[in-house]
Amino acid sequence: MTDLGIAIERMEQLKESIDIGYLCICAAFVLLMQVGFAFLEGGCLRYKDMQSIMLKIFMNTCVTVVIWWLVGYGIAFGRDSKEFVGSSVYVGFDMKNSKHLAEFAFQTAVASAATSIVSGGAAGRMTYIGYFILSVVFSSVIYPFCAHWGFGNGWLMKLGYHDYAGSGTIHASAGMGALMTTMLLKPRNQRFNPKYAEHFEPNNPIYITLACLSLWVCWCFFNGGSSLGIANGASVFMSRAIMNTFIAGASGALTVFFIFYLMNIDQGNKYSLVMICNGNLAGLVAITGPCDNVDAWAAFVIGILGGMMMVFANRVLFNLQIDDPVDAISIHFACGMLGANLVSWFDMDTGIVYGKGGYQFAVQMLGSFIYIGWSALIHLITLLFIDKIGFLRVTLEEEHEGLDPATMGCCAYEMVELQQ
Amino acid sequence: MTDLGIAIERMEQLKESIDIGYLCICAAFVLLMQVGFAFLEGGCLRYKDMQSIMLKIFMNTCVTVVIWWLVGYGIAFGRDSKEFVGSSVYVGFDMKNSKHLAEFAFQTAVASAATSIVSGGAAGRMTYIGYFILSVVFSSVIYPFCAHWGFGNGWLMKLGYHDYAGSGTIHASAGMGALMTTMLLKPRNQRFNPKYAEHFEPNNPIYITLACLSLWVCWCFFNGGSSLGIANGASVFMSRAIMNTFIAGASGALTVFFIFYLMNIDQGNKYSLVMICNGNLAGLVAITGPCDNVDAWAAFVIGILGGMMMVFANRVLFNLQIDDPVDAISIHFACGMLGANLVSWFDMDTGIVYGKGGYQFAVQMLGSFIYIGWSALIHLITLLFIDKIGFLRVTLEEEHEGLDPATMGCCAYEMVELQQ
Amino acid sequence: MTDLGIAIERMEQLKESIDIGYLCICAAFVLLMQVGFAFLEGGCLRYKDMQSIMLKIFMNTCVTVVIWWLVGYGIAFGRDSKEFVGSSVYVGFDMKNSKHLAEFAFQTAVASAATSIVSGGAAGRMTYIGYFILSVVFSSVIYPFCAHWGFGNGWLMKLGYHDYAGSGTIHASAGMGALMTTMLLKPRNQRFNPKYAEHFEPNNPIYITLACLSLWVCWCFFNGGSSLGIANGASVFMSRAIMNTFIAGASGALTVFFIFYLMNIDQGNKYSLVMICNGNLAGLVAITGPCDNVDAWAAFVIGILGGMMMVFANRVLFNLQIDDPVDAISIHFACGMLGANLVSWFDMDTGIVYGKGGYQFAVQMLGSFIYIGWSALIHLITLLFIDKIGFLRVTLEEEHEGLDPATMGCCAYEMVELQQ
Repeated sequence: MTDLGIAIERMEQLKESIDIGYLCICAAFVLLMQVGFAFLEGGCLRYKDMQSIMLKIFMNTCVTVVIWWLVGYGIAFGRDSKEFVGSSVYVGFDMKNSKHLAEFAFQTAVASAATSIVSGGAAGRMTYIGYFILSVVFSSVIYPFCAHWGFGNGWLMKLGYHDYAGSGTIHASAGMGALMTTMLLKPRNQRFNPKYAEHFEPNNPIYITLACLSLWVCWCFFNGGSSLGIANGASVFMSRAIMNTFIAGASGALTVFFIFYLMNIDQGNKYSLVMICNGNLAGLVAITGPCDNVDAWAAFVIGILGGMMMVFANRVLFNLQIDDPVDAISIHFACGMLGANLVSWFDMDTGIVYGKGGYQFAVQMLGSFIYIGWSALIHLITLLFIDKIGFLRVTLEEEHEGLDPATMGCCAYEMVELQQ
Repeated sequence: MTDLGIAIERMEQLKESIDIGYLCICAAFVLLMQVGFAFLEGGCLRYKDMQSIMLKIFMNTCVTVVIWWLVGYGIAFGRDSKEFVGSSVYVGFDMKNSKHLAEFAFQTAVASAATSIVSGGAAGRMTYIGYFILSVVFSSVIYPFCAHWGFGNGWLMKLGYHDYAGSGTIHASAGMGALMTTMLLKPRNQRFNPKYAEHFEPNNPIYITLACLSLWVCWCFFNGGSSLGIANGASVFMSRAIMNTFIAGASGALTVFFIFYLMNIDQGNKYSLVMICNGNLAGLVAITGPCDNVDAWAAFVIGILGGMMMVFANRVLFNLQIDDPVDAISIHFACGMLGANLVSWFDMDTGIVYGKGGYQFAVQMLGSFIYIGWSALIHLITLLFIDKIGFLRVTLEEEHEGLDPATMGCCAYEMVELQQ
Repeated sequence: MTDLGIAIERMEQLKESIDIGYLCICAAFVLLMQVGFAFLEGGCLRYKDMQSIMLKIFMNTCVTVVIWWLVGYGIAFGRDSKEFVGSSVYVGFDMKNSKHLAEFAFQTAVASAATSIVSGGAAGRMTYIGYFILSVVFSSVIYPFCAHWGFGNGWLMKLGYHDYAGSGTIHASAGMGALMTTMLLKPRNQRFNPKYAEHFEPNNPIYITLACLSLWVCWCFFNGGSSLGIANGASVFMSRAIMNTFIAGASGALTVFFIFYLMNIDQGNKYSLVMICNGNLAGLVAITGPCDNVDAWAAFVIGILGGMMMVFANRVLFNLQIDDPVDAISIHFACGMLGANLVSWFDMDTGIVYGKGGYQFAVQMLGSFIYIGWSALIHLITLLFIDKIGFLRVTLEEEHEGLDPATMGCCAYEMVELQQ
């Protein structure tokens, strides 16, 4: 080989190293989202159930890591086999290549985030063992197939389905999981009794704020990291994804701020910190799919639509008496479906507003419905099985006492008074 | 083109990609500072006003993102036009280049941090609508011009004004905004009545600690990110900035630790977690400007001077009965002015301690006074306008009840007892 | 020089810049661990001592930064002199090279984390001045020599001692410091009186969860950053370290989850959020040493062994009536020793399970015992000196009242009620 050839080869190695470094940084930030989920859900529930949801989220993170090492990463990102399922890199086998190691870290962190979304539906009344089983199924079957089809060279991807960081692949499918879970569990006791309405208000808006601002930051890497590198020519998609993540998060939050201001203009309490946080998250979920290839103005519009969709879905669910304890369904399911389908409107290359879009529109619609159908089906089977073996819902006494005192012997900060 | 030429061109593209990746990581960390500001200010205020300041900070972040997309980034970093204002990249136009996208993300996050500094002066008594207007003006007029003059090839920069990450450009100008705001708002009711002194103690030192340690970490990227890249030859300034950020933060905190220890040596309560945090922040603000080009020993000294300045300014403001609810003025204004002017003393190339410095001294003085003059003027006009239209200060009843119960119907964690 | 030569030289510069950028990012994440330590220890103590430990951790961070600039970095990573001590880069001298600046930031952050581990033994009863002295000695003598011998081309490293990110070099030696400190301080008053058992339960499991999840994320960079770069050919070790950090943390936590479930199967309270967090940390400490060169299945096993070791050590310490207020000894000392010695079992090149290992086994055993012996000796001398000058332990009245009210005049959030 010539000297030049050697130099070029070294540069290629350097590029790979850079992508590995970038992916590992993204992986860590996406793992940090678990702090966000723990505090978001902990803050939304009643005080007496706060630790229980954090334990569930901690547990599902660990479960996902182990399961992805065993089978999840192989199904999702192994060598494509008939466009339906991956067929290599199971149990860390064949992963000597360091690019694989870094991708494993990133994709496992992403899968953990998806699993935590489902926990929203289980909040406040599911048993730990039941939820453990659900996490195992979600991270070994439900999500890995979604990921293979949409991200891992599977059939949807080959059809042209475009969902950069997964409004449909991740948020809609996991949000559907939260919906199935909450419907089969039935609402928390007295949830829709107006006399007890205040009891179900979020117990700690400060934690929700901590969570939401942290999630916004991590989302930059959730979306930006989907480039799987920067030296591979994807830096333009990465940086556009991050700029759009800023803008859609902001416009989602401001939309909800003004909706609440206008809705309550003749009352005293016009503001809600919690709903602004939810609006921010709604905008973020909606931009997740289209973030790489829409203009900034489109990100602004998508954020607004996300915020509106969240408020609307929240109202619909309440009126249908579906208990959505941490707004997981109105944020992840509703805005995830929205985001997956807005790709076909705003994508700079294939979008309807640019005069294209018939085919893309159909494919996005197909993909998003496939995802929620698949997720609903497997969730239903799993939850019926969990119910059958008696691990679905805690007893009424435990729920009334609170999951924390009933299963851990103490509430989150009750020690303060004891120790004074 | 020869093969070698192609290889070199590819390497240049790779460099750009690396800088983009680095800038996006910095952007996310600087956005994370909003968690720091929210918990710093929330922890400093009275319990009953805690959510209100977090809502303001969340809102000003979103406002800044949208405004910077529309006009702020264009004014500050658009193509220089007569050294006074930028004239391109408005509304995301002309931003196809991915370097621009990444710089937008970074600079917008920096601008959001600047806006949050002003919120310190508005804490506990300004209306949301009034503060919304102020945020719009700050992020569309006040700060973008400061940024253009000092960072974006404007006239101060061309005169030789050197303020790497913005002790003057950002902290002094935004700190002056906090000062103007708090002076026009007047002190909180009973603030300087000794009988109620304890009521105005920070309600949650733990949150302040969370905030301060997080801000220290993010500050590394705030200062380090001002290199706007690492492959562009600026990695030496970047790494020196980060080392100095470590050292000045540490010496600032230790200075205040010993000042308090000595001041209270014959009393029981010699320590204050809050004041140590403030000392850390004071050191960080002071090193922000000179961080790229001073020696480690100088960073150590600058941190000490920052800590002393903060304690001094805090005492002066208290004696003048200027209400500085979250110490924004004694930290950002006083230490920002200090840092901008210490450049001319400690800069390795132009500093007085190295026997240079007449011209640099004059330029730094000019620049820092221009910044606070400009900021004071536009803040004054804006605040008088807000007063005129009746959105300056909440009613006495609302203030007495607390902004959280009055505007959101509940206090931050009051649900705990209700739900037990 | 030929054009090709120039291009290659530029590529080498680019590589260095990339490593500097990577190291600075790692440095910031490792500094963020101080948030983790502050909230972990604050959450584990009694409410009335919460601020005091946060102040200690904040202080020891600042002390370490300053001391490392003065002497620590020179001792540990200066030019090797007779394999025992470094002999350059003191007081920032000779550090014009930007790689040095970045390494200083990373290694100083690592040293700060080590210092914070010791604070666990001092929790709830050591004076600030005494702890200040201990931090100075730890960061200027105890740890820098450990680091030189194991990381900085010292004699252990040359013997073949392999401890990638420091299970022995950092965790076992600092954990031994916590053990010596707690033994010389003696247990907190009434600690082992069963009547008061509940008073010593962790006061805030939520903070512990925040801390633990954050530490997990930061640990990726603590372990991954030990590659000291990515462009230098170490990216495979870096990415393997991160993957293994994911897996061992997960298996450690799940192990403790099931141990507690099985131990309490016939009782109501089967779960403990705090113990799951501790299990996670135990797995992380155990994988710290072997992370770069073990297979994923070995990381899984190492995490399980870490979780079991932590539970075992926790029981032993309790039965010996050694007060380990924040489980620092059972996590860092016990699992650090475990991790340092598991290298010789599971290392892919030298491990016993791969049929190698006699020599490596002996070296790892030697190294880990040298570390704890050295740490025990200097800690003992220092603590006896501190006792002699009367700064070891607070008075019984101060302890009874709580360190926060006694030394700072208020408890962490007591303002809430006052201000309502």
